[in-house]
Amino acid sequence: MSAEVSRPLEGVTVVDLGQIYNAPYATLLLALAGAEVIKVEPLDGELSRTRRRISLGSGMAFYMLNSNKRCVTLNLKDERGKELLRELADRADVLVENFRPGVMDRLGIGAEALRARNPRLIYAAGSGYGQTGRYKDLPAMDLAVQAMSGAIASTGHPDEGPVKAGPALSDFLGGIHLYGAIVTALFQQARSGRGAVLDVAMLDSVYPSLMSNAGPFVGAAIEGGPPPPERTGNRQGGLAESPYNVYPTKDGHIAVICVTDQHWVGLTEAMGRPELLTDPVYSTKPARIRAMDAVDELVSAWTSVQPTDEVFDLLRRAGVVCAPARSLGEVIADPYFRERGMIVDVDVPGVGPVPLIHTPLYFSDRDRLPLDPAHELGQDNDAVFGDLLGHPAEVLGTYRAAGVIS
Amino acid sequence: MSAEVSRPLEGVTVVDLGQIYNAPYATLLLALAGAEVIKVEPLDGELSRTRRRISLGSGMAFYMLNSNKRCVTLNLKDERGKELLRELADRADVLVENFRPGVMDRLGIGAEALRARNPRLIYAAGSGYGQTGRYKDLPAMDLAVQAMSGAIASTGHPDEGPVKAGPALSDFLGGIHLYGAIVTALFQQARSGRGAVLDVAMLDSVYPSLMSNAGPFVGAAIEGGPPPPERTGNRQGGLAESPYNVYPTKDGHIAVICVTDQHWVGLTEAMGRPELLTDPVYSTKPARIRAMDAVDELVSAWTSVQPTDEVFDLLRRAGVVCAPARSLGEVIADPYFRERGMIVDVDVPGVGPVPLIHTPLYFSDRDRLPLDPAHELGQDNDAVFGDLLGHPAEVLGTYRAAGVIS
Repeated sequence: MSAEVSRPLEGVTVVDLGQIYNAPYATLLLALAGAEVIKVEPLDGELSRTRRRISLGSGMAFYMLNSNKRCVTLNLKDERGKELLRELADRADVLVENFRPGVMDRLGIGAEALRARNPRLIYAAGSGYGQTGRYKDLPAMDLAVQAMSGAIASTGHPDEGPVKAGPALSDFLGGIHLYGAIVTALFQQARSGRGAVLDVAMLDSVYPSLMSNAGPFVGAAIEGGPPPPERTGNRQGGLAESPYNVYPTKDGHIAVICVTDQHWVGLTEAMGRPELLTDPVYSTKPARIRAMDAVDELVSAWTSVQPTDEVFDLLRRAGVVCAPARSLGEVIADPYFRERGMIVDVDVPGVGPVPLIHTPLYFSDRDRLPLDPAHELGQDNDAVFGDLLGHPAEVLGTYRAAGVIS
Repeated sequence: MSAEVSRPLEGVTVVDLGQIYNAPYATLLLALAGAEVIKVEPLDGELSRTRRRISLGSGMAFYMLNSNKRCVTLNLKDERGKELLRELADRADVLVENFRPGVMDRLGIGAEALRARNPRLIYAAGSGYGQTGRYKDLPAMDLAVQAMSGAIASTGHPDEGPVKAGPALSDFLGGIHLYGAIVTALFQQARSGRGAVLDVAMLDSVYPSLMSNAGPFVGAAIEGGPPPPERTGNRQGGLAESPYNVYPTKDGHIAVICVTDQHWVGLTEAMGRPELLTDPVYSTKPARIRAMDAVDELVSAWTSVQPTDEVFDLLRRAGVVCAPARSLGEVIADPYFRERGMIVDVDVPGVGPVPLIHTPLYFSDRDRLPLDPAHELGQDNDAVFGDLLGHPAEVLGTYRAAGVIS
């Protein structure tokens, strides 16, 4: 194990106009891979930063998503502010934004304008519904894209109303796909000097994750059969596995899944029910799928009288795929994330100890980059506009007085 | 608009041992970015391919995830099969696998062994719980990681049991993070010739998406207040926005979100309720958050007596963030995806017309790569083991007879 720190993107400069979750997650991962990320905010801070005014809890996401970035402010409605942005983009490899499509063009600092000055620039736009197509002008947020994508239709119990997925999957699937597109373009740029215009939509990014539900739907359409159920509670999306559910325990819930016959053997052993193996109702996987209700009742009757930990231990030892449905408190406190360096508890000035996130893109042959907690609004204005772009202090003073920077 | 086809990863060779969703999604995106992906399957096919034996619907995901790959078979329990894999890895830039941690090492073809022969190889492992840490030996599937990560705890209505997110978010968040790590390592390799060992866990990849729920939890812990609710139905994870919900309509459901006062003004106009603007119960966002139940009743009373389309039109024109909760059938048929090239309807031989997925990583300054539907099991054995690795036909004949390849 080398003590060298992992910085695969060292030397890459990113101008980051991202806000809320989507683009800021992409640029967090760029920063944690060693890129220099310059986060550009309006003079009163991006929406995610200002949520701290509502409550500390609402503002916490800002800290989690903005480590290791330099923070500057710019008034992009002022011509001098636009010119500073152009100067930054001239020196950058990548510019990232997730405004509504068309906003940057209307400001005169869109892909075409910036790439006319710097043709090797990668202009990366994240959005809900893309820069083209019938929904481009529709405002997007995580919940809206969950509705449009079918994520809501596919979540929940069949006999209850549709419900959203708890995780902000549209924002984060969008954000990590945006990261993927940017790094792909950086690879191309490194080999050819060529820039790119990237258009990553949350709706496009969510669609593949509906595979388990979309597949049976498409299959039924081809075969002319009835469409499968929209949502299946905690059962497999295509109702094609059994046992596959989240079962109640004495003190919680546990997910149990048998994909192979071997898993089923393990489960019957753990349950002390060897006779089920020769019972024709349960002896094959197609039979267990047909008897899904009865299978779920059997498993449920066994899990519900024991504590989660005991069921988990027994099934783990029997080689059955299983996991407790843990509370968020258990998850956040889990030493697992600290062992892997995925969560680092950092004393954030003026806040307290915050479990900051590191990158899931783990290069295990190197050490992780140390975390630098989110900077204050405009903290790096002098360093970036003065030292990097070369504007004298008196000019920046004028700009401050005029509300171009803060 | 150039007619040139986008192949940012042209010239990159990937050996793909991926199975089911996680790694195959990563390698699909590599293939659709122009890399040459050689998919290596056991002689009876990987699990996702064999699901077609259960039903066409269950097997459909295989077609959606394996376009544009060359398909070969290898018996990795046979020494001659291992040697063929080593020869492939010697010529490759990347090897991807998502077996249980330790499997490849036990076969003698793990990261260390392969990188001793080809130090510039990027060895990329996807898994549920990482190659290190306390859960590495725990079998993982999407539902299990949803349970372990808190995704299940955060999904559903507060007064009902926890329910999984419908989309396979652990598999796909894991897969796209794996893609991101691989391309990041390719960028490093292009500049320095250096390889990498990548360890991308689904559990790590899901955690950031719980930001809206984790933030308030951490905030409450710091301030010493009570923890926020584990799940909030269709309300915002931190209960920090209102209106923010999925409301019933005459014929379905619609997501409506007001983040700014301007959204609220638009909503009251669409509802024909201008008097709400001056009512102190609703006039500010903090007030609307306090009156969340009453706000939801007001909006619900208005939406529930109209068809979804009408509510959607009215709110869209009023600039309110909104979206119908669409069924999977509506989503799959949506022309939006065809306009953007994200879904391409391809007549797959022996199956019928399948809405295959293209990459969400859209380089909008180039044309998309044409889709080549998933190859048959072992279809490219002669081309890869013969033409590429240079083994004569008679040797491959012996290997076939001995069950080393098919």
